[in-house]
Formats: sequence, structure tokens, C-alpha cells
Amino acid sequence: MSHQNEKLPDILSDAVLKASVPVPEDFVEVKGIDYSKPESVNMRAKDLIKSMRTMGFQASSMGEGCEIIDEMRSWRGVHRDSLEEHERTGEFDDNGYQKSTIFMGYTSNLISSGLRDTLRYLVQHKHVSAIVATAGGIEEDIIKCLAPTYLGEFSLQGSKLRDQGMNRIGNLLVPNDNYCKFEEWIVPILDKLLEEQTEAAEKLGKDAFDADSPAVLTPSKLIDRLGKEINDESSVLYWAHKNKIPIFCPAITDGSIGDMLFFHTFKASPQQLRLDIVADIRKINSMSMAAFRAGMIILGGGLIKHHICNACLMRNGADYAVYINTGQEFDGSDAGARPDEAVSWGKIKAEAHSVKIYADATVVFPLIVAATFASGQ
Amino acid sequence: MSHQNEKLPDILSDAVLKASVPVPEDFVEVKGIDYSKPESVNMRAKDLIKSMRTMGFQASSMGEGCEIIDEMRSWRGVHRDSLEEHERTGEFDDNGYQKSTIFMGYTSNLISSGLRDTLRYLVQHKHVSAIVATAGGIEEDIIKCLAPTYLGEFSLQGSKLRDQGMNRIGNLLVPNDNYCKFEEWIVPILDKLLEEQTEAAEKLGKDAFDADSPAVLTPSKLIDRLGKEINDESSVLYWAHKNKIPIFCPAITDGSIGDMLFFHTFKASPQQLRLDIVADIRKINSMSMAAFRAGMIILGGGLIKHHICNACLMRNGADYAVYINTGQEFDGSDAGARPDEAVSWGKIKAEAHSVKIYADATVVFPLIVAATFASGQ
Amino acid sequence: MSHQNEKLPDILSDAVLKASVPVPEDFVEVKGIDYSKPESVNMRAKDLIKSMRTMGFQASSMGEGCEIIDEMRSWRGVHRDSLEEHERTGEFDDNGYQKSTIFMGYTSNLISSGLRDTLRYLVQHKHVSAIVATAGGIEEDIIKCLAPTYLGEFSLQGSKLRDQGMNRIGNLLVPNDNYCKFEEWIVPILDKLLEEQTEAAEKLGKDAFDADSPAVLTPSKLIDRLGKEINDESSVLYWAHKNKIPIFCPAITDGSIGDMLFFHTFKASPQQLRLDIVADIRKINSMSMAAFRAGMIILGGGLIKHHICNACLMRNGADYAVYINTGQEFDGSDAGARPDEAVSWGKIKAEAHSVKIYADATVVFPLIVAATFASGQ
Amino acid sequence: MSHQNEKLPDILSDAVLKASVPVPEDFVEVKGIDYSKPESVNMRAKDLIKSMRTMGFQASSMGEGCEIIDEMRSWRGVHRDSLEEHERTGEFDDNGYQKSTIFMGYTSNLISSGLRDTLRYLVQHKHVSAIVATAGGIEEDIIKCLAPTYLGEFSLQGSKLRDQGMNRIGNLLVPNDNYCKFEEWIVPILDKLLEEQTEAAEKLGKDAFDADSPAVLTPSKLIDRLGKEINDESSVLYWAHKNKIPIFCPAITDGSIGDMLFFHTFKASPQQLRLDIVADIRKINSMSMAAFRAGMIILGGGLIKHHICNACLMRNGADYAVYINTGQEFDGSDAGARPDEAVSWGKIKAEAHSVKIYADATVVFPLIVAATFASGQ
Repeated sequence: MSHQNEKLPDILSDAVLKASVPVPEDFVEVKGIDYSKPESVNMRAKDLIKSMRTMGFQASSMGEGCEIIDEMRSWRGVHRDSLEEHERTGEFDDNGYQKSTIFMGYTSNLISSGLRDTLRYLVQHKHVSAIVATAGGIEEDIIKCLAPTYLGEFSLQGSKLRDQGMNRIGNLLVPNDNYCKFEEWIVPILDKLLEEQTEAAEKLGKDAFDADSPAVLTPSKLIDRLGKEINDESSVLYWAHKNKIPIFCPAITDGSIGDMLFFHTFKASPQQLRLDIVADIRKINSMSMAAFRAGMIILGGGLIKHHICNACLMRNGADYAVYINTGQEFDGSDAGARPDEAVSWGKIKAEAHSVKIYADATVVFPLIVAATFASGQ
Repeated sequence: MSHQNEKLPDILSDAVLKASVPVPEDFVEVKGIDYSKPESVNMRAKDLIKSMRTMGFQASSMGEGCEIIDEMRSWRGVHRDSLEEHERTGEFDDNGYQKSTIFMGYTSNLISSGLRDTLRYLVQHKHVSAIVATAGGIEEDIIKCLAPTYLGEFSLQGSKLRDQGMNRIGNLLVPNDNYCKFEEWIVPILDKLLEEQTEAAEKLGKDAFDADSPAVLTPSKLIDRLGKEINDESSVLYWAHKNKIPIFCPAITDGSIGDMLFFHTFKASPQQLRLDIVADIRKINSMSMAAFRAGMIILGGGLIKHHICNACLMRNGADYAVYINTGQEFDGSDAGARPDEAVSWGKIKAEAHSVKIYADATVVFPLIVAATFASGQ
Repeated sequence: MSHQNEKLPDILSDAVLKASVPVPEDFVEVKGIDYSKPESVNMRAKDLIKSMRTMGFQASSMGEGCEIIDEMRSWRGVHRDSLEEHERTGEFDDNGYQKSTIFMGYTSNLISSGLRDTLRYLVQHKHVSAIVATAGGIEEDIIKCLAPTYLGEFSLQGSKLRDQGMNRIGNLLVPNDNYCKFEEWIVPILDKLLEEQTEAAEKLGKDAFDADSPAVLTPSKLIDRLGKEINDESSVLYWAHKNKIPIFCPAITDGSIGDMLFFHTFKASPQQLRLDIVADIRKINSMSMAAFRAGMIILGGGLIKHHICNACLMRNGADYAVYINTGQEFDGSDAGARPDEAVSWGKIKAEAHSVKIYADATVVFPLIVAATFASGQ
Repeated sequence: MSHQNEKLPDILSDAVLKASVPVPEDFVEVKGIDYSKPESVNMRAKDLIKSMRTMGFQASSMGEGCEIIDEMRSWRGVHRDSLEEHERTGEFDDNGYQKSTIFMGYTSNLISSGLRDTLRYLVQHKHVSAIVATAGGIEEDIIKCLAPTYLGEFSLQGSKLRDQGMNRIGNLLVPNDNYCKFEEWIVPILDKLLEEQTEAAEKLGKDAFDADSPAVLTPSKLIDRLGKEINDESSVLYWAHKNKIPIFCPAITDGSIGDMLFFHTFKASPQQLRLDIVADIRKINSMSMAAFRAGMIILGGGLIKHHICNACLMRNGADYAVYINTGQEFDGSDAGARPDEAVSWGKIKAEAHSVKIYADATVVFPLIVAATFASGQ
């Protein structure tokens, strides 16, 4: 305290003008964009992100998220030749070096949004190793190949939209005809799948339920089949099929595909197509166990977030984690839980690099991808 | 405008002191609690809710939520005797009159919390007709019969907790030993179920996959079995089994039960227990179609919210809906969508009575239940 | 881990079935409402809150909030006779024992809502010592004495409402005529206040700006005058005037009162009524310094939250703090900051008992007051 | 509906496969980034924003926000020569054409963050006409000229930080010494201001309180003086002083400046520096009335948001409005209110172009500025 005001009661100077310890040398100063530099005009993604890293609040979290993504995608271990056969479990780059297995999760609405093109880009270029989505995240990708989704408004009145057959997803609109087209497209596939199930069951007899039985369809097998059938380069599922990137969706019945499977039970009766979820939990957990390093990029909350984290428990924790969502922890939901909650469960390693970015994925993920996967580096 | 200030520029009086139309006669005045009344001391639930109805903001929404719940639980249609045989699809009260089918959904964390006792109360007394939960909402109910969950803090450090084997759920703690106890409890049941699957498959041969095949286990059948086996009156699953209230959980592999099913694949190999989700989508959708009136009480977001709404699409919309969650619509998530978005899809009827209460369910649902189901009326 | 599954890979049993440390004896089990008890029918506030205390999530926070409020209102120190004259700075109860000084803050919208009756109850019965509000929190209290506020809906269209002269506040509606009535009511008071300022200024001459000068009007003096003039028992301001409970509002020009003061400058020109905010910061800070113990009950965020906390810095921190708001910390706003951030500043004592309840005040404060101030104890 | 499934109950095909009306021609298809284009590598701000415009959710809102900002900054009316003298009230560009008056508001924490450099850039280059801030938004700008703010973490423990004299603002840290430096810097200025007040009061005698009296200090005059005294090109206040851009802060006592003014009352006694807020409400409202067109860019909620909106009521509504904040409307707070609520009050014109972007300003405003004000166009 200065001696400028000698009449000041002691409690005030003690409380308000309390001295602080010397600032540690490794402290990083808060700074923003230096607009005097030429690159600050119509800035590029990498420059923006670099300046945001020291801005504080969620700008810093975005910067940190990009760092973590760059770490997970650039990590390389030893060459496969220096590993025993049984150790060659995870992924290798084109030169034969160990690399991270990256699990990406997203909620249905992000496929409905224009972020689908960004997600497809990542799958097309093999930037991720596996995907977890909710039912809508599967079917909307296919449906967009059949007919477009449109921009709308959050405030459009539900009863009027229902009269028009226009389904609202936030500020998007999907004509109900799109689902009718989907029904036309998928029924023959379901017919075929039932046929295949029946044939395999007959052939295998009492072994039809065994591990790896071709009689048993799973969500991930169904999704792979849909990706093959749609045969459209704008589709995430198409590229996932092409690049052998599994897409998991344990609750695939919770959406239009579920409606179609339900409808199909009337047609198929007394036969019934089945979808087993035990084989898929074995499949995703096995990928996690096999990974040399595991990274998580999770857009949104709920099932897709928990499912990836839970799989990473099987390896005693992910090595890298980036959460992007708008959930809050105060209601004890898993959706809103911070990465540190997952650390307590062993789903993220204690020493892992992790961040949660509190934002709608559509406002941050395009910039994050531009500054990482699509940065040209 | 008064003529008190003649020097005032016209634009100001026009803009700021603009006259309003006469107040319509049906307008309801905002009012709060009248503390001069004797019942305003240590108030009872019904009195509190009644006063909150005219308070505005979410207090009004809570009041409205109670009204809707009272409507859905008190609705009665015609007597079963006045219906044709094929029309007797839905539920009847003890006197034979049609009543509503009530779908209740909740996320896992609410079973972890003390709200479980309230949810169990509703199931025990048959106040609801069907339940949709996430995996944790199933297993935590069982686990609590084996060992307690404890109060903690949101800010406890993850790495320390992991060292201690203490798993954090918001401000709750679950010792990891609880999951070990769960493993010990469930493995014999999974063994038995695999045996039953194998036997039935052998017996049925090529018809093993058919509709209603006893060879095919589903999440709802598994949950019913767990409720039977736990045989504990503190359990939601126990009462659901007892009262034949189905519990749906399409992604039941997404949690500790999934871990156990995964572990079991090692033990069972080359056999494998299977869980089919197609039969369950048929089952829940059929309940919705059969209902005379359908009500939804949905605590939390994500899968459980969408799943109930989607089922109600099969009847062209629910008649009553109460959402309680903390999600927001701005990110286009289904979790945060208002009831009016579901109206656009035909999941809630245009003329239905619905409300969304923006709150953590633990702060509002105890009071709501106290003022409705547990009001003594 | 059990030995039920000997084929399980070690990493799985180590990670998933990791043993936990023994549960400490002071751990509190999560429990909810025991519906077998007779008091669980149409429950009373205190019983509800007691059961919610061990529920977890925000139910526990509500329970804790009630405990803190009971602590702050029941704390008693020594008798005034055992204090030196200069030590008799704070508040005493009717028996002469030291008690806490309670600062209550609320945002404008809560006075617009029916919570106003609860806030008025607290002031009427001297349960709080000082209030901080925003401009609307002052004027809406007066305006409600002149004409009612009505229930509306969040989704009503703004342009239609403007045509009708209906102003929307969330799901409330205030006819613009109410503000015209307010203008008629307040202008004569402003005229009188200007007269008084002029007289005092003339009388005091060069000392007119001095400390305690009657020529200088402040927001708290203006508010006290409005409370006196309205003379209406439904008003918070009336009881605050009556009970000498100061109401602080540093930005009182930011609302309809500001509009009226602005209009008045045209009428008064070249004279001008003045409102000094320096005297008020001295007044609230002095109350904080004088308090034996200081408690904070803050409903909402923004200025009212910061202002009370900042005043409590003058005493090196509040002893009790209950925040109720919907703000989140991720954007670095003071509105969303947890109590622990205020601890870093010395605004809350390190050893203080504090809690933040994440909720709209209208859904939790009626129950909290019913279980504390209005519990009959 | 297709005729693929003739056994399907009618209610199902009617509800689920309901036909939609033809898609209106003006519907805009949801689309994302086209990664096949060369400009999609390390994207530039304008290209990113353009692609985000059709993505949906908040990406679309960001795109719309940029459009609105471009509209408000590019609008030009008639030449000043074609206006009567009394009509030349608002702002003109360098060529003499009418342009918009832009009100920018921000909360304190944004000046603490690195966004300060962006805000300063806008003031330095006269991109805005007036500013409304909270107290911290004033003093932190000055304090940063005296000593840096540092990056920290949201989870740092308050009691430890207090021991070290480190004040936390979200994930930022401000050493308490910075406030001591501020005290040393400001006390001589307050001394000088008191001197000036005393001199003017003596000179003016009974007219000392009149409109435009130099005896009466206001927050905006004090802020201008601070900007002049700091004389530092990194400062927002410096450039505001230089460019005659008024900064309004009705509650300037609610922060460290208030602490200093409070302290000063001990030193100055019996004299007292005064800060009148009536003159400032006249000043900001007059700017609004004078504007040819009015635009609002409001970062954060609370007082700064309401104050700008309220000023725009004086012109019967703003013509352009961009809100960026994380508040939600469900609790009826003004902070969370959508632009449409302001339309009902006449604070935004019914025909105005407005948007609310639900995000922490630090994650969206750098990109928005890069794509608009700092786009080189």
C-alpha cells in the first residue's frame, strides 16, 4: 500500500491492498491479437487460434484443444518391425510407425447440420479410427444423400410445421418426405438382411448365436452395409465403409432406422430381423485395448460421450481428450461432466492432456479443424 | 402521457410513453405467496405449488407441470365393457375405466442420486406404465442394493480419487468396490442366461430368431430378470418386475452392465450371450399405439428423452408432456429441444398440454411429486 | 475382483475392477425421501429440504443453502453491554446480542415476478439488513402498486406485443400504460427533489458537495423517498423505508427511473437533479466494515452480485454466502463465478460457509424461505 | 408412403410417413465447408464465416451476426449538405455521408481477457461510436497498462490463491499488487479532480448543480480523464479519449475504482468527490436520439446489455443488433433475453436485423472481427 492515505482504516488496506507473492517466472501473460501485423487482416485459422491461446476463458480452451488434437494426430511410437507379432495390435502410419487410435463421437444434430461435411472430411482422409454416433447421426447422413435439409428458425411454430410435414431440428427443417424416401430406400436392404440372417441361421443351426456368427447382425455391421449401399461420396458412412472405420451406435433403434425396423417386423412376421449389441461392445472395447495411444474427440454429450469414455476405461484411460459441448456439471449428468470426472473413473489417464470447450460444436469445430487436420500441415 | 412535461421531444413520449391496448379480461395477474395466511408457515407442497403457479418464470412452469401430471394421472375414459374386444388395448383403472399410459424417462445420474427413492415410489405404486433409462440407470439401482453411494463434492480432484478407487458422479462418490460386488452378483446370472439362450436355440433350430423366440434376450427382458433376482424392496427394478412395468434401455451395453457382458465374452467363448434391440423397439412402440392416452414425464435429456418421444410418434403424438432438464435449444440438440419441436415431428399432439421445466430434476421433482402423486389426493 | 472369469485379460480386471480404499467413517450415504413415513404426504418445506440434503446434485446444494441461511440468521455474539462504545458498530437483536448483517441482492426480474411477495416478506420482518438491486428492481416494485403485471409466454412475438404496447419480461407482460402511470406518479416527486437540491445548494454554498451534504441526492436516498411516498404495504420499498433497511442501486438510471430523470432534464433545464454514487459506495462499504458477521443472499448475477461481494471485501470477506443463479463460470463472467472465486479476492472468508445453487430463483427460493425464515422457527 | 409394406397399420403410415408440402423455392439448403477447394486449407476468416452461414445452429447465427455488422458499418445515408442544420445530428463518414452510430457494450471480464486488444482495435480505428462497460471494464484496462494479467485455471483453489494475493477471474489471475499499483496511480488524479470540483463549486455558487456545470463530475468524464492520463496506446480508454468516443459506466463505483473513491473519502473528509449519473443518462440517450441509424454490438449480459437497449428505446428502437452471450431466457433475466424481447419494448425496431449468438465472446468475437472490421474490406 502506498502512504498516500494515512487516514485509511487498517482493515481496508489489509484486505484491499494486500500484497501478492512474486509472480512465478513460468506465468503466461494474457494477450490477444496484435492487429499491427499484416497477418491480422482476414486472419487464417492457425494465426487466429495461436492468438486465442493466450486470451483466457474459452478462447484459451480452444487453443488448448487444437494443441491436444495436434498431439494426438502427430504422435508416433516405434516401428512395427521392432514389435513382436502379438504387440502389433494398434494402428500404424504409412511408414510403419505406431500412431494413436482416435475415437470421434458426435450427436445426431451435427450430421443434420453443415458440420457433416467436416465430419466426412475427417473420415474420408482417415483422420479418425472409429466413430460413435446416435441413431440420427446414422440415418440423417443417408437421408441427406436422398434429399436436402434446409435452414429454418428456432421460433417456427410446431403445429404449423406439423401441418406442413416439416420437422424441425433447432433452426433446421427436414421435410417429412425425406423420411418417406428413406423408407423406400432401406426396406429392400432390410429384406435382404433378413434373408441373410435366415440363411445363416439355417446353416449354422445351434451355433448361430456364437461369437462371430454371420447370422447375427450388429449395429456396426448394419451401418457399414448402409455405407456400402448408399455409395455416395458426400456420405460419412460411405467413407467409413471404404476406409474400414467402424461406426458404433448401440441404440440405433432410437430414430428413423428404429421406425423402419419396427415397420419391418409387421412385414417379416413371424420372422424378425435382429440386432445384437453385445458383439459391438466387444468390438469397440477391443479397439481401445489394442490402441497404442488413444485419443477422444467428442462433440456433444449423452450416450456418445459416455460410450467412448467407457471404452477407454478398458485401457485404463485415454491419453488425449477433447470435449466440445454445452452441458454443465451442476446437475450431475455425464453429459455435463468435466474431463476430470472421467479421470476419477480411469476413463482418462491422470497424466493425459485433456480439455473441455464449452460451446456449440458448430461455432468452434470448423475453426479447430481448419487449424489442425485441415491446416496443410 | 401526462402533460407534466411539455418540453419533452415528441419521439420520447411516443416511444417511451406509448399507450397500451386495454388488458384482456382473461389475463392472469402475477402474484406470489400470501404470507399473512396461516398455511404459509413451513408450507406444504400443494400450497407452495399453487402459489408458484402465478409467480412467473420457471415457478409458473413447475405449477403448470403439476397441473399436467394431475391431468394425465386423473384422466378416465369409458368403461372397458363399452369397448369391443380389439379396442381394449391400453390401460384400465381398478374400476375398469380407461386411463393414461404414462412413460417416464430418466438419466443414469438420477438413480445415483437420492431421487431414486422417489422414482421407486412411483413404480412401487404403479403411477407409471413404462420406463426408459440409460445403462447406468439400470445398474446403479442394483448396485445400491449391494453397497451405498456417498455424498462428495464437484471439485474433488480426479487423479486423487482414481488412486483411492473412488468414482465421481457430480457431487457423489461411488467406491469402485461396488462395481466389483456387482460383477460377483451378475456373472452367475449371465451364465444362466447364456445357458437358457443355448438351450432355446438348440430347441428352436432355424426358428430361433423369430418374433417372440425365447432364445432371443432383449434389454427389457434382461432388466426384468435383474429386478426379479435382486429381490429387494428398495429397488426400482424389483418393483418394475413385480408390477410388470417394462423398463427399456436400448443401449444397455453403455455402462457397467456392458463391461460385464464384455468380460463374459471371454469366459463364454466361443459362445456369446446376445441382446437384441429390435424386439424392444417393437415392444415400446406397440405400447404407445395401444395407449388410450399417452403421457410423458422425462427427467434429463439425450437418449431417454428422444426414445419416449419417438415412441409417441407411433400414436401421432403424446397427449401430455412434462420435460425437466437443463438443456438449451441453441445448439440444436434434441436434449435441449422444447416440446414445440416435438410437435413439429408429430411426437406431441398439437393440442397436447406440455411444458418444459428448466431445472436440475433433483431440485424440482421431489416437490412436484409431493404436490401430485404423493399429495394424498 | 472375483475369480469367476479366469480368462479375463489383466488390464481389464486392473482397470475396471480396481479395488477402492475403505470408505471413511464420516462419509454420508446418498438417500432420498422415505415415503413410508406419514409426513411424506403433501410434504412440508422443512421435511422436504431435510430429505433433499442427502440427495446429491443441486438438491444437496439447496439443503446446504438452508443450513447456511439458518446459521446466518441464528448467529448471536456477545451482549452489547460487554462491548466498548466504539465496538457497537453492527447489528443487535432485540435482547441486545450481536447478530449478523445480512446483505440480500436480487435482479430486476425477480421483483417483476411473484417472488416480490417473498422479498417483501423478508424486508417487512427485518430478516435482512440491506439490499442491492438493479434499476428495474426498484421501479417495478413501485409500478406494481400502481397497476398489475401479468402472466404471458416466452414465445409471444415481439412485434405484435409492441403494437399492443405490451412489454415482455420472460413469460411476464407489463402493459406500457403502467410506465405512463409511473411517470405521472414520479414527476411531482422529482420536481420536489429538485427544489430541495436547489434550496440546500443555495444555503450551503461552497460546502454543498461536502460529505453528508443534504444538497446531494444519492440512489439510496431517492429509493428511501420513493418507499415513503408510495406508502403501500405490498411494496418492498415501503417496508425498507419503514424498517430503515437501505436499498442500494448504483445504476439506478438504467431503467424507467432513468428515463424519467432524463425526461426531467428537459423540464428542469437549465437546472438538473443530480444523483451521486460516491456517497452510496461509502455507505454500503461502511455497513460491511461495521458488521459483526456478514451474510450474503444473492439471487441472480451481474452488478447486484458483484456489488455485495465487493462490499464484503472491506471486511476481508463475508462469513456466509448463498448464491442462487443460472450463470456458468466457463465464460469468465463474474455472474457465473463460484463462491470460491470470491474467496481468492477476499470477498468471502476462506473459512466461510458458502454454496451456489444453480437454479432459477423462482423455483428454489420460495421453498428455501418456507424452510428457513418462514418455517415458524 | 411406399407400398412396400402392406401390413403396416394405417396409424403408423399416417403418423410416420406423413407427406410434406412442396419445399418453397426460397428455402436454403444446409451445407458446410467444401474441402475440395484450395481456400479450405488453413482457412481465412471470411471464407470460414461464409461456409458457416449455411451450417445451421450457432454457426448460422455467427454468419448472420457478421452480415448484420457489415450492414451497420457500411450503411450510408444522404450527404450532410442535403440536410438542414438541425438535422445534422448523427454521424457522418469522411466524405460527408450519414452513417450509423454503433453502441458497443462489454462486461468487465472481456477487458481482463485478451479480447481487450480486439476491443481496443475497434476504438482505435473509430469503428464504434460509444461504449458501455461495467466498472471492471474500465479499471482493468488501466491496470493492464501498469502490470500484466496472467493465465490460470478455473479449478485453482480460492483459499490458496488468497494466501498468495492472487485474484482469480475465471481462468485468469491478477496479482493483488496490480491493484496497489492502481491505487498509487489514481490517488493523485482523484486529488486533482476534487480540487477542480471544489474550485468550480466555489466559482459557480448556487449554479454549481446546473446542467453542464463543470463542478459536476460524471462517470463518462472521469473515464475520459483516465484515458487521457494513462497515455498508453495499448489502452482502450486512451483511444476513446483520443477519438472522442464516450465510455459510459453508470455503476463505476462497483469495482476497484469504487474502492479507491471510498478510500478517498477518508482522505478528503469533510470534502467529498461526487459522481453524478443523471448527466450521463442524458448524454447516452441524446446520442441515441441523434443517430441516423443505430447499431448495437453487445458482448455479455447484465447492465451493459440493458443500458444500450434502453438508450435505443429513446429513438424507438435500434436498427441493427448483435448480442453475444451465454445467458438463457428461462429465468426471465434481461441478461438472457432474446432480441425479440427487446422488440416488445421498442428497444429494437420490429423491422431491424438482429441476432443473438449463444457463446462465450472470446470464442466467437475474434473470428467475427476478423471477418468484418478487420477483413481488409
